[in-house]
Amino acid sequence: PPSPLQPPGRPLGPCRSFSNNKIQVELDESSGVAMMKFKSPPVNSLSLEFLTEFSISLEKLENNRACRGVIITSAVPKIFSSGLDITEMCGKSIEHYTEFWRAVQEMWLRLYGSGMVTVAAVNGSSPAGGCLMALSCDYRIMAENPKFSIGLNEAQLGIVAPFWFKDTFVNVVGHRTAERSLQLGSLHPAPEAHRLGLVDELVPEEKLMEKAAAVMAQWLALPDHARQLTKTMMRKAVLDRLVAHREEDIKNFISFVSKESIQKSLRMYMEMLKKRK
Amino acid sequence: PPSPLQPPGRPLGPCRSFSNNKIQVELDESSGVAMMKFKSPPVNSLSLEFLTEFSISLEKLENNRACRGVIITSAVPKIFSSGLDITEMCGKSIEHYTEFWRAVQEMWLRLYGSGMVTVAAVNGSSPAGGCLMALSCDYRIMAENPKFSIGLNEAQLGIVAPFWFKDTFVNVVGHRTAERSLQLGSLHPAPEAHRLGLVDELVPEEKLMEKAAAVMAQWLALPDHARQLTKTMMRKAVLDRLVAHREEDIKNFISFVSKESIQKSLRMYMEMLKKRK
Amino acid sequence: PPSPLQPPGRPLGPCRSFSNNKIQVELDESSGVAMMKFKSPPVNSLSLEFLTEFSISLEKLENNRACRGVIITSAVPKIFSSGLDITEMCGKSIEHYTEFWRAVQEMWLRLYGSGMVTVAAVNGSSPAGGCLMALSCDYRIMAENPKFSIGLNEAQLGIVAPFWFKDTFVNVVGHRTAERSLQLGSLHPAPEAHRLGLVDELVPEEKLMEKAAAVMAQWLALPDHARQLTKTMMRKAVLDRLVAHREEDIKNFISFVSKESIQKSLRMYMEMLKKRK
Repeated sequence: PPSPLQPPGRPLGPCRSFSNNKIQVELDESSGVAMMKFKSPPVNSLSLEFLTEFSISLEKLENNRACRGVIITSAVPKIFSSGLDITEMCGKSIEHYTEFWRAVQEMWLRLYGSGMVTVAAVNGSSPAGGCLMALSCDYRIMAENPKFSIGLNEAQLGIVAPFWFKDTFVNVVGHRTAERSLQLGSLHPAPEAHRLGLVDELVPEEKLMEKAAAVMAQWLALPDHARQLTKTMMRKAVLDRLVAHREEDIKNFISFVSKESIQKSLRMYMEMLKKRK
Repeated sequence: PPSPLQPPGRPLGPCRSFSNNKIQVELDESSGVAMMKFKSPPVNSLSLEFLTEFSISLEKLENNRACRGVIITSAVPKIFSSGLDITEMCGKSIEHYTEFWRAVQEMWLRLYGSGMVTVAAVNGSSPAGGCLMALSCDYRIMAENPKFSIGLNEAQLGIVAPFWFKDTFVNVVGHRTAERSLQLGSLHPAPEAHRLGLVDELVPEEKLMEKAAAVMAQWLALPDHARQLTKTMMRKAVLDRLVAHREEDIKNFISFVSKESIQKSLRMYMEMLKKRK
Repeated sequence: PPSPLQPPGRPLGPCRSFSNNKIQVELDESSGVAMMKFKSPPVNSLSLEFLTEFSISLEKLENNRACRGVIITSAVPKIFSSGLDITEMCGKSIEHYTEFWRAVQEMWLRLYGSGMVTVAAVNGSSPAGGCLMALSCDYRIMAENPKFSIGLNEAQLGIVAPFWFKDTFVNVVGHRTAERSLQLGSLHPAPEAHRLGLVDELVPEEKLMEKAAAVMAQWLALPDHARQLTKTMMRKAVLDRLVAHREEDIKNFISFVSKESIQKSLRMYMEMLKKRK
């Protein structure tokens, strides 16, 4: 809802509050902070639809001068996001794989390269692509529940994290921690994730949103322009690397996902997930 | 003063002790260690004159075979160096900006690339360019007074640290800590700076010089040649990057500092500093 | 000895257990884990013969589909490996220096680039080249005896670690720790090595092999293919750098080792070692 502090006479922008299928977006124009809440049960998996909605929402906020920061979090209990939606990779056409992978890239390019301050309020487990989203923010706060874990666990599923997942990870935790964690496909319980620097802070779950708002206020105290140029200076090399190799990266994904052995293990994995429920 | 341990018959070199306007230099030929004391009150700001004197003094020591190590510290209470002198960036000619920025580059190229062992005895606060000088040494010892802080706080002033400030910072504290600290323009109190690895050691202020001498002795126990080649191997990539982009970096600075908006905010900042006194 | 769990009817491969002069190799085909034990007293120095045997043994295991992981350790009390054999660098022909240095490169290219899981069970001191071998593994466990130390101490001997020693070191401990440790030629006692991240874990010496087996089992729980591709992604840049500059690196070594001053200091060093005994 619009803040009571909103200056009188300010026009109601188109994106003060908009909700699509998968993500609810609320912009508090008085503080300049938007909240993006993932509401795609059961596990906020990153389907083509989810990713498209995410990128469009983020672009809208980016172009809205009233918005300076975004907090991303989940409306689904116990899970932040389960990562890429495996059904998008199973038994689909090459055209579909292409479109899907481009949407994954787009999400990351927009989030890692966002000019806004981005804070992840990680209020549940966050494997694989979910972890990437958190890693791509400026700051990560996690609920201190040791049952919640986070990590790039692709290797556990017999697949390899793309190079730009790895680059993002190395920029956060350094080469050695990334090498070990990626090879083992580790999912780190919150306390361990904090020790490794994968998340910046742990707080009790009920304090998570309050803390996220406080951190955001601290970052927004800085003038935007200098902060944005500084962020670009830190992240440009890694962003440029995907931009330069984007089509090649799509081809790699297609050639990988088209293998019969991979299709088989993805199908088995989906069966297992269904039985678990 | 020459040490009583100086071997008899050793010629008195030309640079045993020389003092210019801004920096006092004393070389103890018996130990091979020079002390450079910043004495440019009120805050040892890095004016064109200060920087020129620093580079010339360092070059003299570098070329003096009796000198193997340098300790840099401040003769002004509570401040190591306040960083670049803002008056050099305000209302001056393009020729002046060019000369000034070249002097900033020169200081860093000589200090970060010095073949001597360099130890910073940080006996006061050290923002921005002052922090860069400390980061460019081989080892940093700071007085454990939590009122003293250190950091690259450019973003706080609405400006962006040059890429080679950033490269030097990343080499010391790693990518993640640098990204966060630079975006927030953080000034870290001594204990936090130590936790982040920005300084190597904290000691009570009265033990600072003693400790600096002990650290220097430890580093000088190594043969110079192998140590110098090792240092070059670690630092060359980052030094070469500025050398390759030096003129471009000057142009960037001029175009930035010539903006009316920047001139205005620098004038306001100077007014504020004057009122503070 | 072959494990009692070995499936009946499995052909006895050529490399279940083979012992050459310098290194004893045992492969437990039931677990897929080979043990390489350095047994070249007094100090497991890396002579041409040792290095050649190491590379050939590793290649055999790499090509044996029954082998998925290797634990390297020492059969000599108190020493893991003392590093490069100085007698190979003293008073020999250019042809010999070339052959020797190529064997050092070969050892590292094979070990750092191995598709198998590699665990170092560091059961003694491990300076210079011995430290490089440990750094090149996927995981390092060290006996918690503070009398055992590890590090790239080349600078202490007046020589410079090659750039690929440095790259491997930086990938493990980060730029700052590497810069300081390499310049000082530090040999870190086990507890300090653990604090710096140079080794991943310390255990009482009598538990070392048990722990190494447990760690290996954890790493082998992952599917090989994804783990191998992930490892390649993390290490390829550094491996490629030596491959691209291999001949240049050999020339550098020859030109260095051919200097009369270096020959002299190596001879003095060997004299000192002889007297110590």
